[in-house]
Amino acid sequence: MELDLLLQATKEQLPQHRWEHTLRVAETSIRLARRFGADEQKAEVAAILHDYCKFWPDEQLVRWIMDRGLPEDLLQFNKELWHAPVGAEVAEVRFGIQDEDILNAIRYHTSGRPQMSLLEKIVFLADYIEPGRRFPGVEEVRKTAESDLDRAVLAALDKTIVFLIERGQKVYPLTLHARNHMLEQTAQKR
Amino acid sequence: MELDLLLQATKEQLPQHRWEHTLRVAETSIRLARRFGADEQKAEVAAILHDYCKFWPDEQLVRWIMDRGLPEDLLQFNKELWHAPVGAEVAEVRFGIQDEDILNAIRYHTSGRPQMSLLEKIVFLADYIEPGRRFPGVEEVRKTAESDLDRAVLAALDKTIVFLIERGQKVYPLTLHARNHMLEQTAQKR
Repeated sequence: MELDLLLQATKEQLPQHRWEHTLRVAETSIRLARRFGADEQKAEVAAILHDYCKFWPDEQLVRWIMDRGLPEDLLQFNKELWHAPVGAEVAEVRFGIQDEDILNAIRYHTSGRPQMSLLEKIVFLADYIEPGRRFPGVEEVRKTAESDLDRAVLAALDKTIVFLIERGQKVYPLTLHARNHMLEQTAQKR
Repeated sequence: MELDLLLQATKEQLPQHRWEHTLRVAETSIRLARRFGADEQKAEVAAILHDYCKFWPDEQLVRWIMDRGLPEDLLQFNKELWHAPVGAEVAEVRFGIQDEDILNAIRYHTSGRPQMSLLEKIVFLADYIEPGRRFPGVEEVRKTAESDLDRAVLAALDKTIVFLIERGQKVYPLTLHARNHMLEQTAQKR
């Protein structure tokens, strides 16, 4: 994998503020990978590509969802969800990435899912806690992430659902399934 | 339907405080039925029976869930959910109630579901706002229920999900589906 090529190609897809966010997600992902024993290079690649399609026009995202046979129920939910599964397809088609774990880390970085892999949790969480994030409660999640990845992911999922409800937005069922599953996992660790 | 028989039989199943709750849910259901044009007698019957099994032992509820072929995923979720679908079965078997709308109002009074009928919404909401309820935010839902049934049901579903998340309890997916659906319905009315 030529990292420089990925960096350059992704930078061209994003406005400056989102490119800087991407770099912070990559740094945070590498740090979390080191902390929790994941593959740092995979974490970096997934993080760099995670928002590749974030600023694509809706029509282009919809076309990829249809053409690649992605779950069409996505179209009934918040558009913010679309760039993640499409991003995984683009990573495969345009950059030849075949590592399923990297692809899934991109695919589920917004919604989460039950039984996330270590890498998936890391990119999901890095996106939530990267140092540019400022929303209420993020500091608490950052603190939890210093020692307990699962609890930090659970807290991020919880806060995401509550945030969407308070804003009057639909919640993608997969996110609730991810949260219920993570709750069970962390309860078993107690 | 002999109402006195239902009242007496239900009273025998419940501790005093829950029996009084049941009477308040019945009164509230009748009032809501009048307000929003539902069948008051059906509302009363469903409300009287809604918590019939609330204090049954877990084993008895599980046996009914298995014997009657109810969704087994219930067993993976909060026990508080079980008495509602079992209550609908009991209403049918013990009291010969065959009106599907009454049975569904009992069945879904805890979880909700997408596309609830008028009667289902009324019993669900009455259970949430009856005058004995004291939790934060209930007054706001009562106020909404004076004029807009759907918005009141949506608010109750929203608050239920947030409450469960804050308490670290699993959320039954049907409740999220109910909430997403009700959000769509109320958005279309705007």
